[in-house]
Amino acid sequence: MYFASDNSSGAHPKIMEAVQKANADYAMPYGSDPIMDEVRQQIRDVFEAPEAAVYLVATGSAANALALACMCQPWQTIFAHREAHIEVDECGAPMFYTGGAKIELIDGDDAKLSPAALHAAIEKTGQLGVHNPQRGPLSLTNLTEAGAAYTPAEVRALADVAHSFGVGVHMDGARFTNALVATGASAAEMTWKAGVDAVSFGGTKNGCLGVEAVILFDPKVAWEFELRRKRGGHLFSKHRYLSAQMNAYLKDDLWLEMARHANAMGKRLSDGILQIEGGELLHPTDANQVFARWPRKGHQKAHAAGAAYYFWPFDHDLAGDPDALLGARAVASWSTTERDVDTFLELISGG
Amino acid sequence: MYFASDNSSGAHPKIMEAVQKANADYAMPYGSDPIMDEVRQQIRDVFEAPEAAVYLVATGSAANALALACMCQPWQTIFAHREAHIEVDECGAPMFYTGGAKIELIDGDDAKLSPAALHAAIEKTGQLGVHNPQRGPLSLTNLTEAGAAYTPAEVRALADVAHSFGVGVHMDGARFTNALVATGASAAEMTWKAGVDAVSFGGTKNGCLGVEAVILFDPKVAWEFELRRKRGGHLFSKHRYLSAQMNAYLKDDLWLEMARHANAMGKRLSDGILQIEGGELLHPTDANQVFARWPRKGHQKAHAAGAAYYFWPFDHDLAGDPDALLGARAVASWSTTERDVDTFLELISGG
Amino acid sequence: MYFASDNSSGAHPKIMEAVQKANADYAMPYGSDPIMDEVRQQIRDVFEAPEAAVYLVATGSAANALALACMCQPWQTIFAHREAHIEVDECGAPMFYTGGAKIELIDGDDAKLSPAALHAAIEKTGQLGVHNPQRGPLSLTNLTEAGAAYTPAEVRALADVAHSFGVGVHMDGARFTNALVATGASAAEMTWKAGVDAVSFGGTKNGCLGVEAVILFDPKVAWEFELRRKRGGHLFSKHRYLSAQMNAYLKDDLWLEMARHANAMGKRLSDGILQIEGGELLHPTDANQVFARWPRKGHQKAHAAGAAYYFWPFDHDLAGDPDALLGARAVASWSTTERDVDTFLELISGG
Amino acid sequence: MYFASDNSSGAHPKIMEAVQKANADYAMPYGSDPIMDEVRQQIRDVFEAPEAAVYLVATGSAANALALACMCQPWQTIFAHREAHIEVDECGAPMFYTGGAKIELIDGDDAKLSPAALHAAIEKTGQLGVHNPQRGPLSLTNLTEAGAAYTPAEVRALADVAHSFGVGVHMDGARFTNALVATGASAAEMTWKAGVDAVSFGGTKNGCLGVEAVILFDPKVAWEFELRRKRGGHLFSKHRYLSAQMNAYLKDDLWLEMARHANAMGKRLSDGILQIEGGELLHPTDANQVFARWPRKGHQKAHAAGAAYYFWPFDHDLAGDPDALLGARAVASWSTTERDVDTFLELISGG
Repeated sequence: MYFASDNSSGAHPKIMEAVQKANADYAMPYGSDPIMDEVRQQIRDVFEAPEAAVYLVATGSAANALALACMCQPWQTIFAHREAHIEVDECGAPMFYTGGAKIELIDGDDAKLSPAALHAAIEKTGQLGVHNPQRGPLSLTNLTEAGAAYTPAEVRALADVAHSFGVGVHMDGARFTNALVATGASAAEMTWKAGVDAVSFGGTKNGCLGVEAVILFDPKVAWEFELRRKRGGHLFSKHRYLSAQMNAYLKDDLWLEMARHANAMGKRLSDGILQIEGGELLHPTDANQVFARWPRKGHQKAHAAGAAYYFWPFDHDLAGDPDALLGARAVASWSTTERDVDTFLELISGG
Repeated sequence: MYFASDNSSGAHPKIMEAVQKANADYAMPYGSDPIMDEVRQQIRDVFEAPEAAVYLVATGSAANALALACMCQPWQTIFAHREAHIEVDECGAPMFYTGGAKIELIDGDDAKLSPAALHAAIEKTGQLGVHNPQRGPLSLTNLTEAGAAYTPAEVRALADVAHSFGVGVHMDGARFTNALVATGASAAEMTWKAGVDAVSFGGTKNGCLGVEAVILFDPKVAWEFELRRKRGGHLFSKHRYLSAQMNAYLKDDLWLEMARHANAMGKRLSDGILQIEGGELLHPTDANQVFARWPRKGHQKAHAAGAAYYFWPFDHDLAGDPDALLGARAVASWSTTERDVDTFLELISGG
Repeated sequence: MYFASDNSSGAHPKIMEAVQKANADYAMPYGSDPIMDEVRQQIRDVFEAPEAAVYLVATGSAANALALACMCQPWQTIFAHREAHIEVDECGAPMFYTGGAKIELIDGDDAKLSPAALHAAIEKTGQLGVHNPQRGPLSLTNLTEAGAAYTPAEVRALADVAHSFGVGVHMDGARFTNALVATGASAAEMTWKAGVDAVSFGGTKNGCLGVEAVILFDPKVAWEFELRRKRGGHLFSKHRYLSAQMNAYLKDDLWLEMARHANAMGKRLSDGILQIEGGELLHPTDANQVFARWPRKGHQKAHAAGAAYYFWPFDHDLAGDPDALLGARAVASWSTTERDVDTFLELISGG
Repeated sequence: MYFASDNSSGAHPKIMEAVQKANADYAMPYGSDPIMDEVRQQIRDVFEAPEAAVYLVATGSAANALALACMCQPWQTIFAHREAHIEVDECGAPMFYTGGAKIELIDGDDAKLSPAALHAAIEKTGQLGVHNPQRGPLSLTNLTEAGAAYTPAEVRALADVAHSFGVGVHMDGARFTNALVATGASAAEMTWKAGVDAVSFGGTKNGCLGVEAVILFDPKVAWEFELRRKRGGHLFSKHRYLSAQMNAYLKDDLWLEMARHANAMGKRLSDGILQIEGGELLHPTDANQVFARWPRKGHQKAHAAGAAYYFWPFDHDLAGDPDALLGARAVASWSTTERDVDTFLELISGG
């Protein structure tokens, strides 16, 4: 029962098989492998964006930081939710890659931004001209850090605010496919049709070994991206192993199939928690991440059985009143089984 | 016949098998996987360095830039050969990661530095105090960019110069194992016993998918390295796939076996070229990289047959006097076969 | 009637005279002028810090950013008040000079931090290890952006919190002397005796042309500071003109005399505003900065007469209900006269 | 007898007087002072460039680094002479301000570049695409570090090379006026008419306290320059003192008059050295900097008398064969007198 994070899952057998198959023979290095040509076309098809520039890197932090660095001058301010991965979980990678930009933190329920809060934050930035940090891009996370999914209409509303101030829109899509499945939106509807200029399209958390695509809907920044990727040490010589993952990921809707499964397991878990006496959700379970609260005795049983997940916030104490409600984050993945969920539920029900 | 670079080879089946095996089940992310514990011990054993800090990244540029950033302040000067990879082939990655250090370029035959040239370069740096860029680390490449191997004694002599000025020594070991095999030195003899403070220990070019170890013999900089790696986007969530490669690479001397083979194929190719009328070496073939010259007609035949290798320098012209000697770089790898070499030799002999 | 900022005042005649006097003859450049030797000693005497490293630069942003860069790694977080100059008014200079550090913004009345708020902010930073930006220095502003003065005891309490987490303390003293006069503290009591590790000691706003001292109580970072100053383009060749200003500034207590006058004028203005019908303070007037509110009709009269000061917040509208209260910032300086204050009061009383 | 550098001279009395005059009353800060309006017009007139963006900073390193940062991406290469101030004497300021660009060092007599050498250097840069640092701006120094003056035709020839590769041209004009006087060229002829895109127009070394103008002939980068200046801590609050210097400097041809005098004193010194037995020039004396060699006994006498100048190279030894020729750099300034020169000549003649 491993619910600590979807990044603790392995890779789907089809992805692993593709990597192995790509191993045959020699291949041109640094992204000139023929599989990458296929991948570029697959992504352009999936995103209905025939002109998009498409690149692969191995980590989500690299994808986010490199994309943002192409959209943000060193003296600008990125607008993001207070809990955004780029703020909290990347040891300042965006500051490093942009050359010292700052992030303006905005509050909002379920780690989502509202157009009004975004408008206020951008408006107050840079009002005194050269003295202030200047306005830079919006970075949205979909699925959010609290497991919520923005709909295309919500993205559109936020992108409209950003564009009204002349700044671009980046989407951190580490769990992009989970958000698509949650909303029923197409990749195009969720991105450029809603005003997104660049997306970090995650593969790692959803069944790959380690691959993320950066998709730049404005191909004018493509060369800058390539230079930043190389300079950041993120251009792989044996690039074919990245290509192979993404190729298999997108083939026959494997990416959607895996996210659908993960979301279904998230829902199964979420529904089950609501059946527990005292069980309640901290955030709506739109996809595969469950934020919920249940009595301590259930946590005690689960820990004793070796279940892996995080307290939420992190610093809860396992000892204490057995009926006190303690929060937790539990994340399902493509490899979570119904049995995993049910066993876990039985434990945390504390019965 | 693929001699363009050893980074165009695939991964050794045993490495691929290890990656696949590592795929089973869940694993702790971000380097906390149990395979990494094994790898740390393997590397400490191989380098006879029980205290060394050991980290994995996926590219050689990342390994070099991150290691150097821990050894070099932004206002310092790295000392390196004019043809060093960090100067020529990384789009300025060390400048980016150090926050703007410069590289002082030093000339030397076969892309090797001499102690005298190094001494002169360091001595003249920073003589006017605060006005000048300051003295920083030496970065040696072994195997050099011209295919030559430094012996431990040569490394020692250079490290003594560096240390006499109070600066550290980094070794770019993208082809470290080829250099070990070429010289018969042990990993410890080639590094810390010879005065090296940090080494980028390459796996990618020698039969892995994409993995390089950074070994810091001074564990005091370990935490800084970890922060820089994370901030650079180079800490893998599904780290087990890096660990698995390095684990298999070092098991049962596979790393040495592959380099021995590659070096033998380099020698076979080099010896064969000297049999060609007009054939001559541009640099001694110490290991798996061959820099040589032969008549244009041999190049014409090889190109017509689709052989892959580089002119050296790059901009030679295939058309012209068939007897004119044109330089080339041809690199053997773990997967080069005797037949590959012999077929290639037959072509370039122009017969 | 110029109350827009103390940086709009000229230089005190004695300072100007010193600059002129320093112009005679040749002088060693780059801080080796003999006047700087005197200045170093003056500052060490004033701060009772015989070992302190002392440097001059020409702007407050340079002083702050250079000092902070010596105290803060690129991956660390500076702790400061939300309204701090380093956050709001320096176009990101600290992010530039530190190589991409971030600032954690903390709220507090009168632009002051409380120990509890500081403790909470530092404690929650870096809890997840390598994933998070790390803990870095505290930067206090005294006088605060809201015109309040920290007492030495208040500084001590905050410094104790910072030091308990192992991070240093910087004081932005653009209006340091005003704070000293306001509290009656000595320079030593306000700084190193209260736990401050480095101070930007302002001269520009208090009667100089443009000079700020950076005082590092830990001389171990002196050389790094010198390199950063030079690399930042802030080491003056004709340094004597900086030295001469600071020399005259500190001679015969001129610095204290000017701040005393400015604070007295601030109080005169503040007291006068409270006499106006509807007049009230937005922040206590501890020194020379007055934040207050009075009826619009007073603003209208003052604007019509050409009085210079800022609405607070900036975007008030001059047109509208004449009795509505509108906020303002008015800053007195060494050159503000009683007559300036009284004339201004008469205007804004709207009578 | 002070010939160590022109930066050891004081300021011309008219400049000092202007600074004093500017001290009256209040003035808008941060470059909004009315004197700056005059200066902008003066510079546009002098350079015959009605659209040029004009900014003031206080040091030459700031002027160079800020101008170059607006012309050079972090991954690009600046092309400059091996002895250029930006390479040797600024502790890496251009690397800091550009975010990690590198400088490609080019050799050439008298610290001048030839079009052929420049062409070769640019051509070989970036040939392997994304792997290499990319081509960036040319930075010329006029007067050169060896005291030579480029003519407008020479600048044109170099600028043509740069522009043929699509990169811009910066001129480090720390001694720009000396170069103008030496060649008889106008400011426009030496800059934009010859293909220069941005110039650091020095005042400090030629009789000011500390002021340099940056003139951007392409006003499209003006806003970026303003942000970089502020972020670098180089925007002065009491800007009027910078404005006043430049205002007086350009008034009634004072700048030209001072440079004419300095150049004449340089020539007088140079001519005199050639009269000494064994006296010879290391570089032609085009302006106010003299690089020459004469017997050690002359150096001994001069040192004994307290004359200030530099050995060239720096590390000559005063003890030894009295007839051995030792090199020196001696720089005349606006304040050098004929008597200074003649006294110095008498000493170094060793008679």
